[in-house]
Amino acid sequence: MAIRAPIVKLTAGRMTLTHETSHYLCRVLRLRAGDAFLAFDPEALLEADATITVASDSAAEITVSETRGAKVVADVPLVLVYALAKGDKVDAVVRDATELGATRVVVARTERAIVKADEAKAANKLDRFRRVAEQAARQSGRADPPKIEGVYDFAAALEAAKSDTQARYCLDVRGTVELGALLPAAITTRSGIAFAIGPEGGLTDREVEAARAHGFEIVTLGRFVLRTETVAAAVLGAVRVLSR
Amino acid sequence: MAIRAPIVKLTAGRMTLTHETSHYLCRVLRLRAGDAFLAFDPEALLEADATITVASDSAAEITVSETRGAKVVADVPLVLVYALAKGDKVDAVVRDATELGATRVVVARTERAIVKADEAKAANKLDRFRRVAEQAARQSGRADPPKIEGVYDFAAALEAAKSDTQARYCLDVRGTVELGALLPAAITTRSGIAFAIGPEGGLTDREVEAARAHGFEIVTLGRFVLRTETVAAAVLGAVRVLSR
Repeated sequence: MAIRAPIVKLTAGRMTLTHETSHYLCRVLRLRAGDAFLAFDPEALLEADATITVASDSAAEITVSETRGAKVVADVPLVLVYALAKGDKVDAVVRDATELGATRVVVARTERAIVKADEAKAANKLDRFRRVAEQAARQSGRADPPKIEGVYDFAAALEAAKSDTQARYCLDVRGTVELGALLPAAITTRSGIAFAIGPEGGLTDREVEAARAHGFEIVTLGRFVLRTETVAAAVLGAVRVLSR
Repeated sequence: MAIRAPIVKLTAGRMTLTHETSHYLCRVLRLRAGDAFLAFDPEALLEADATITVASDSAAEITVSETRGAKVVADVPLVLVYALAKGDKVDAVVRDATELGATRVVVARTERAIVKADEAKAANKLDRFRRVAEQAARQSGRADPPKIEGVYDFAAALEAAKSDTQARYCLDVRGTVELGALLPAAITTRSGIAFAIGPEGGLTDREVEAARAHGFEIVTLGRFVLRTETVAAAVLGAVRVLSR
């Protein structure tokens, strides 16, 4: 894997690195004059090939080639099955999921959901979720917004989530296993991961059985009761933090 | 540690357990008739002492003593230093932090924040954040809302966060180490953890230096640019998922 280093205000030509980046490249990674690395500007969302000209632990000098737009894409499948909910709750979840690297969001009808969308309304909602995902992807420097799918019945949504995932978790109060006991291993093996999250009113016994039948482990996040949008941000955030 | 099992619709007297909980207690944990455990109802937020009367992998029977309100408290210090921001962004972060088990939220003034609060306004804002925390704690079944502190200058906020934490991380684009490389070890050792998150406009060089001087590692969450409230939910969510 190429060495990547963050450089704010990245511009083509000669640059002197900050203390921190100099230390990282020349002390921690032991780069010498003539060594190349990939420089990226996390604010401007640019990247460029760069070469060390003067190695130093505190003020290394580099030359930077022409900058280009950073094409950052999500790599490992990360699928969220989320129950259709009232108001702009799903908008917020789609936005979080986009920033946190979800590759697909599958919107599901569930028995206890307060919202019942007919076909026409469902199509409108999906259009809106797609616009939210596109906007969030642009703002987070992500080249590929997550694919928005649905609105499917819960079992069909679970089925859709199976196609590119090997590790599947359904978050539910009935869970007796904590997600944290299973997730790190799934990330280490770079498995495609799916999370299914029910509506505010919870999943029915039948829906939990459907999740189990589709290969989802029924898991919990521990002791506090979370809103479903917080669950989404927490589990996708855990994947983001642990994926390296 | 006492064995805890989730039982929806927990009531005093005799109950038959679901297949899942029976399997967990009698097969996985090998409880026998006469064995005791702590039953809790994650929806009603009740708990009770319970005893197995008939062990079974699929339909165990138990007796349940009088139920009591579940007193669930956050145990390991988990401190969030968050920059004062416009509108109800901080409200949303306080709500998430409460659900995800933060023990303290320290609100900070930062150089690039858009909001400048004078003393009177700051006191009003803190009052509002406290009400949000209390309400979120009630809704999530948490006995102790996080302590809300501030509004402090950034350096003073970092100093305040030091008192009960051993592992400290400042999320910033300049970070060359990924949080995921450090966080699991901090959780395994049950260290008190502090996160410092700057404003939407980012921290200044001087503020990052202050974080480093206060023992915060400068870390990143990887490639996508996140809104500051998503960063808060992601890092606290990762702690929640990994803490067991």
